Amino acid sequence: MSASQASKEPDIGAEMYELIAELFPICRSITGDGIRATLRRVGEVIPLDVYEVPSGTPVFDWTVPKEWNIRDAYIADARGERVVDFQRSNLHVVSYSTPMRRRMTLAELRPHLFSLPDQPERIPYRTSYYNETWGFCLPHRLLVELPDAEYEVVIDATLAAGSLTYAECVLPGEQPEEVLISCHACHPSLADDNLSGVALATMLARGLAQRARRYSYRFVFIPGTIGAITWLARNQETAARVKHGLVLTCVGDEGAFTYKRSRRATAEVDRAFAHVLRHSGHTHQLIDFFPYGYDERQYCSPGFNLPVGCLMRSQHGTFPEYHTSGDNLDFVRPAALQQSFELCSAVVDVLEQNRTYVSTNPFCEPQLGKRGLYGAVGGYSPQQYQLTMLWVLNLSDGDHSLLDIAERADAPFALVADIAARLAEHGLLE
Amino acid sequence: MSASQASKEPDIGAEMYELIAELFPICRSITGDGIRATLRRVGEVIPLDVYEVPSGTPVFDWTVPKEWNIRDAYIADARGERVVDFQRSNLHVVSYSTPMRRRMTLAELRPHLFSLPDQPERIPYRTSYYNETWGFCLPHRLLVELPDAEYEVVIDATLAAGSLTYAECVLPGEQPEEVLISCHACHPSLADDNLSGVALATMLARGLAQRARRYSYRFVFIPGTIGAITWLARNQETAARVKHGLVLTCVGDEGAFTYKRSRRATAEVDRAFAHVLRHSGHTHQLIDFFPYGYDERQYCSPGFNLPVGCLMRSQHGTFPEYHTSGDNLDFVRPAALQQSFELCSAVVDVLEQNRTYVSTNPFCEPQLGKRGLYGAVGGYSPQQYQLTMLWVLNLSDGDHSLLDIAERADAPFALVADIAARLAEHGLLE
Amino acid sequence: MSASQASKEPDIGAEMYELIAELFPICRSITGDGIRATLRRVGEVIPLDVYEVPSGTPVFDWTVPKEWNIRDAYIADARGERVVDFQRSNLHVVSYSTPMRRRMTLAELRPHLFSLPDQPERIPYRTSYYNETWGFCLPHRLLVELPDAEYEVVIDATLAAGSLTYAECVLPGEQPEEVLISCHACHPSLADDNLSGVALATMLARGLAQRARRYSYRFVFIPGTIGAITWLARNQETAARVKHGLVLTCVGDEGAFTYKRSRRATAEVDRAFAHVLRHSGHTHQLIDFFPYGYDERQYCSPGFNLPVGCLMRSQHGTFPEYHTSGDNLDFVRPAALQQSFELCSAVVDVLEQNRTYVSTNPFCEPQLGKRGLYGAVGGYSPQQYQLTMLWVLNLSDGDHSLLDIAERADAPFALVADIAARLAEHGLLE
Repeated sequence: MSASQASKEPDIGAEMYELIAELFPICRSITGDGIRATLRRVGEVIPLDVYEVPSGTPVFDWTVPKEWNIRDAYIADARGERVVDFQRSNLHVVSYSTPMRRRMTLAELRPHLFSLPDQPERIPYRTSYYNETWGFCLPHRLLVELPDAEYEVVIDATLAAGSLTYAECVLPGEQPEEVLISCHACHPSLADDNLSGVALATMLARGLAQRARRYSYRFVFIPGTIGAITWLARNQETAARVKHGLVLTCVGDEGAFTYKRSRRATAEVDRAFAHVLRHSGHTHQLIDFFPYGYDERQYCSPGFNLPVGCLMRSQHGTFPEYHTSGDNLDFVRPAALQQSFELCSAVVDVLEQNRTYVSTNPFCEPQLGKRGLYGAVGGYSPQQYQLTMLWVLNLSDGDHSLLDIAERADAPFALVADIAARLAEHGLLE
Repeated sequence: MSASQASKEPDIGAEMYELIAELFPICRSITGDGIRATLRRVGEVIPLDVYEVPSGTPVFDWTVPKEWNIRDAYIADARGERVVDFQRSNLHVVSYSTPMRRRMTLAELRPHLFSLPDQPERIPYRTSYYNETWGFCLPHRLLVELPDAEYEVVIDATLAAGSLTYAECVLPGEQPEEVLISCHACHPSLADDNLSGVALATMLARGLAQRARRYSYRFVFIPGTIGAITWLARNQETAARVKHGLVLTCVGDEGAFTYKRSRRATAEVDRAFAHVLRHSGHTHQLIDFFPYGYDERQYCSPGFNLPVGCLMRSQHGTFPEYHTSGDNLDFVRPAALQQSFELCSAVVDVLEQNRTYVSTNPFCEPQLGKRGLYGAVGGYSPQQYQLTMLWVLNLSDGDHSLLDIAERADAPFALVADIAARLAEHGLLE
Repeated sequence: MSASQASKEPDIGAEMYELIAELFPICRSITGDGIRATLRRVGEVIPLDVYEVPSGTPVFDWTVPKEWNIRDAYIADARGERVVDFQRSNLHVVSYSTPMRRRMTLAELRPHLFSLPDQPERIPYRTSYYNETWGFCLPHRLLVELPDAEYEVVIDATLAAGSLTYAECVLPGEQPEEVLISCHACHPSLADDNLSGVALATMLARGLAQRARRYSYRFVFIPGTIGAITWLARNQETAARVKHGLVLTCVGDEGAFTYKRSRRATAEVDRAFAHVLRHSGHTHQLIDFFPYGYDERQYCSPGFNLPVGCLMRSQHGTFPEYHTSGDNLDFVRPAALQQSFELCSAVVDVLEQNRTYVSTNPFCEPQLGKRGLYGAVGGYSPQQYQLTMLWVLNLSDGDHSLLDIAERADAPFALVADIAARLAEHGLLE
């Protein structure tokens, strides 16, 4: 498998965008039919095992919550006109709102209304998973104009024993060690956070399914926090086999890349992302682990301390569209999704191909000329190619992986890997 | 014991200043009645054990010197008028000057006169402990105006077998490991160097005497160099129990803080001062150990290599008032002394409270909501409070102390310690 | 041996220059009579053992090549006039050109002509050791003016079984551990690269032959690459005794110094050069090892990984005169050679004198005054001298060498070594 083979899917950004657009209208939450419908659609692209975990199941310090499903919700004025209508945006209802149907004054209703004074046109996204209450979210502009009248308030939902749903796509490889790629699939109509992560994981899985794989790959599509906790509680042995891991979120917007390192800070996946980003030409930042964010919080809890990083473009919580109706189908872009796919593919290539070779001629340099090993292959400058070859020979002492060598030689990993393969063919490495 | 309890003594700067003012006139040296009188006064504030070590006692490579006491000294002119008079300032006589009484010409006298041409109004401070000689110190302005006449030169002193005096205030704690706080108490009328250190040590001891203590504390009031050497020679077993140590000098002037690290460079006391200073808002510098300065030189000699740092405000030897009559009661200030006290108290809090906890829920995050652990306590922002709590949980893996966590979370130690205590109450840490 | 003794040879730059001038006209290659004549001349200055290794001898992955000797070569025009003439510059012939004698048109000749379009007045230096062919090098200005006519092309050379020649100057020391100093002696009329290295190695050896030596010294004068490989193949046991090593090249030009670290990066020779250069006042750069350059490539191959650095002034490959007729007797300067000699001598002093002492008074400072150890010796400021003495005493704990101490104290090694010797005389170090 050549280093650059995986990423040659020029239209995959558009495909990802289409998948996002198709999934966007579904009202997802951490349980319920929304996430089930989402996983069904993903399962049409890649092989998925779907798991249902009953409400009430203890998972470490937590308990799987009741299942929530919603059919309709609105606030209607005296004439029966819906001034806030779930049918127009599922963000209008606080996720996990308890069912209710009542007439009430604006004063009674007001504590249950949420808006963003700084972004008066946008609907905020709110949840109340573990505190049984209800609420509506609406644009601040609309909120301040609501007449002081009586309203009919309806939330046609059920919150009852059921199950939590998650899915896995498992792709066995030559080795039992696993690469874990995780995305939360529990948000309603929010495109970047995190249908972008769902679409990227789906397409990475589809591509990997068609390749020879050194590692086994496990893609998990889960509700955030409680889903990761549930998965970890049920998969402790599997977790012990995770050699590299990645959380995907907010990978579809046009912001610069942010890679958040694992708690270990220098895990191979951390070094692979740092390397690939540096050679990508894309603006990016590398940030250290902190115990907030998405499910890396659980994977990197001290009992697990898995080597799991998190890839983002714009960083969650730092952009105005985050957790608002502004995170819509205009906010994500096929070209941005394409870059994210290619970046992750390049990192997968590094992980797959990173090995430690030993030179068969450790005493002095081998004579390259007699083997026809002078001159570049593959569009590199002869100087860079030849010097990189000398680095590979010099550092293949059993202590340096190809990634170590790429870093030391300041050369792209793909070049280092191609040269190592060529030297191995000539019997100079083993 | 809460993290901020110890430092709430708003008038202690004024108290320290008064103690300094009371001790200022005493003519101290490395032996003799001056240091005895000083220790007697300190002993009225805190319990002191006073030790007398006879002249001639071998202490490592040194020998306890003769005891020096002075009653009077002057240079009088032909009319009997004292042109230089010990009664006006004890700095006028070189410390350890041999007794003498003679008439002599200015030419004979001149090699025994010392002044500061660059600071013509100030009297320098000089000593001659190990070279038996005599001398007078005077303002350069006065020196250059001395008529070429005959003078009566009198030093009414004794230099004879006696003893070296030092004192200890020992406060036993839960653990036999000790915190050593050392100050030199041998300088005559110099306020910052080092009555400020004597006063700070006294007040720290008084405060600690009233607290529950994890560590045992040992405050030593000693003559510089020979006193530290004598103490170390007589207390090698005690020295082996010193877990944290500190030399106090020049802590009463208004300069920025300087903390000089121990020879170990990363001892807990070094990290505690770095942390507390960084969060103090005070201008400060951290400097590495060098084998010059005050008694850290002896504590950090290679055979001991104790974890002893040195706190200063203006650094000895670098300010014009140093070792001159300019280091007087105008040069030290109650507010500066107050800050020094509070800083040391905060460091003591760090040392006392720094422990390594282990999370009882290492697998995934514990559910904070069900325990009412959301929301800040104690005036911190909810964001900082909550994130710091997540840091404490995430890093309580047995490998990170609370100080490690405070550094990693970039949070004040007091917040980290308060959160850890709260989590421990909820059974989440142990 | 005092630290500065070795470098006091004020006229050695001029001597080195004279040796270079004498050797300059000889046509050297990696084998043949040119290198033999060169080694004969060096052998008049220092004792040399000359080795001949037969063509065809396997040396690791390589084979000792045929021996090449040249007597004459030219390109003559129809009137018999030599338009390119080996007698005027031995750079005119590609080294290892096969013998030939033929008339040919310019079109036939053209592929065998090499010039530098960017430096039209200079003759390039080219070789073809392992690809049997022939060629001429000439100024580009001349090449473009060659009339389209028939030429007589003559290379009166032999390429046949013979031997590869190298030489060693071995100076036994107190210890069997060796300092290896290596220079390539295979280039024809190029002054900086590398007659400068040959001259410097010669003079260093001459100086060391007259000194007491802690280490044994081995100077090797070898053809580049194949010579180093041959030497290593025949001296694996000797190589295992190399404690410090150095390749010398381009040390006669007026550029700033460049020291290229060994592959180990922190070998004692690396630290010694860093220290001496920093205190030298000379502009310089320190660069990390990379597997290109001169024979450090072989010494630092992974099977050997010897602590061998490389000293240069202008870095090979980066200046326009490199490998052209511009690298001539005007390009090297006695004063530059003198500096290079003094620098290497100072590094040798560091290596010879770098020891780890243990203080005999590790508990507290020893009393310097009673031993008359106050006050500077040797032109240093009293402050620097005294503080350095305290550093030596404080860090002589068995874990710090004199070089470690010099680095920590930011003092010149010579001062540290002199102080250590003085303290040892007084029984304070051992």
